Amino acid sequence: MTGKFYGLGVGPGDPELITMKAINIANKVDVLIAPETVIGKGSIAYDIINRYVENKEKVRFQTYPMTYNTQELGFSWNKNVKEILGILQQNKDVAFVTLGDPMIYSTYIYIMRLIAEMGVMVETVPGITSFCASASRLNIPLAEGNETIVIIPAAYECDNLDDIINQCDNIVMMKPSKNFEKVAKKLEKHNLSTVMIQKCGYDDEKIIRDLKSVDGKNIPYLSMIIAKKKGE
Amino acid sequence: MTGKFYGLGVGPGDPELITMKAINIANKVDVLIAPETVIGKGSIAYDIINRYVENKEKVRFQTYPMTYNTQELGFSWNKNVKEILGILQQNKDVAFVTLGDPMIYSTYIYIMRLIAEMGVMVETVPGITSFCASASRLNIPLAEGNETIVIIPAAYECDNLDDIINQCDNIVMMKPSKNFEKVAKKLEKHNLSTVMIQKCGYDDEKIIRDLKSVDGKNIPYLSMIIAKKKGE
Repeated sequence: MTGKFYGLGVGPGDPELITMKAINIANKVDVLIAPETVIGKGSIAYDIINRYVENKEKVRFQTYPMTYNTQELGFSWNKNVKEILGILQQNKDVAFVTLGDPMIYSTYIYIMRLIAEMGVMVETVPGITSFCASASRLNIPLAEGNETIVIIPAAYECDNLDDIINQCDNIVMMKPSKNFEKVAKKLEKHNLSTVMIQKCGYDDEKIIRDLKSVDGKNIPYLSMIIAKKKGE
Repeated sequence: MTGKFYGLGVGPGDPELITMKAINIANKVDVLIAPETVIGKGSIAYDIINRYVENKEKVRFQTYPMTYNTQELGFSWNKNVKEILGILQQNKDVAFVTLGDPMIYSTYIYIMRLIAEMGVMVETVPGITSFCASASRLNIPLAEGNETIVIIPAAYECDNLDDIINQCDNIVMMKPSKNFEKVAKKLEKHNLSTVMIQKCGYDDEKIIRDLKSVDGKNIPYLSMIIAKKKGE
């Protein structure tokens, strides 16, 4: 008999953009896992839910390095999953907090998979995505009527970007800090109306409507571009 | 001097999947607009937030017919917007509740635009989308690593569906009740792994992994298909 494992999406940053369900489960479970990228650096996801957690003693930090080194990633995931399984085997329920939505580009996906493979019951609670928060912040629709939306992780290479832009009406480029110059040129070529939002909902949020004025070397990690074919 | 206009995303159906922000604003404004498709039928969006609204006397129902008749739509929008503007002009704050996320395929987009054009200050609060809720319910990732996601409103014609599927990794077909047979055939041709979820989060929720067993004539409005290129 093992406990249950929960993944809690805590939304994009604004602590008010958390769901009642995430708060209720965080207060119900025995242990709350707060992922941080560097030991002692703190957890962005946990910072969002912190004010709602009644018993802070249940919080346990785990380190998940930000790296593309798959060996290092595998090592840290396995170590952390082993710790989580140890708690679950004591018949304790565990929740893992994660930024934005758990099913979109999250480390939680890998952790969930490893834990579900061990026969543990898993429940995932969706969160507000950064692209929905950004669109609402800007009052720019992501899609109307029969339009399509495509979400592209711009931090990676995207060789078929031209084809995707040709086929879709609305384009969201997530985290364009890595390939910004390349991405901006492609978007410009297609004559789209674009806006970049950096750190949406944070005190130092920035909205930039002319991509040419963006300092490509100093784009925060939590940034995105919304590009639309039709005027707006 | 006019009041402020808010759009509140209340999520996909489960009342716990509402944000703190939507609840706080609903209780702060003077008037809460509850859209219904037929007079007296009730509002799906309002039913979700109802339990959190302290003062029920602030709720005002408005009728927004479900129709593709643009003349009828225009007439009802203009009538409702006129009523909202009348309230705002009394320096009262008004919030409009909307299912899912306000910036994705919502009537709120049109209302917001008409009201913003009159110089009223508008604030939109994002909501949990039905596709995020469905992915979490199924524990199926919408995107990992460098994958793309495309959101397609299947209720409309989609002539370039083959091209879109060729270019993107993960496909979400929203509300496939209209063109189901056509859409299912196309998805099958591309050899994707597919799952349909109907009324996610409701008591009569259904999960169907073999699209061939779906009764195409009885698909509820609140349905979607998640299709993935890679195994999962």
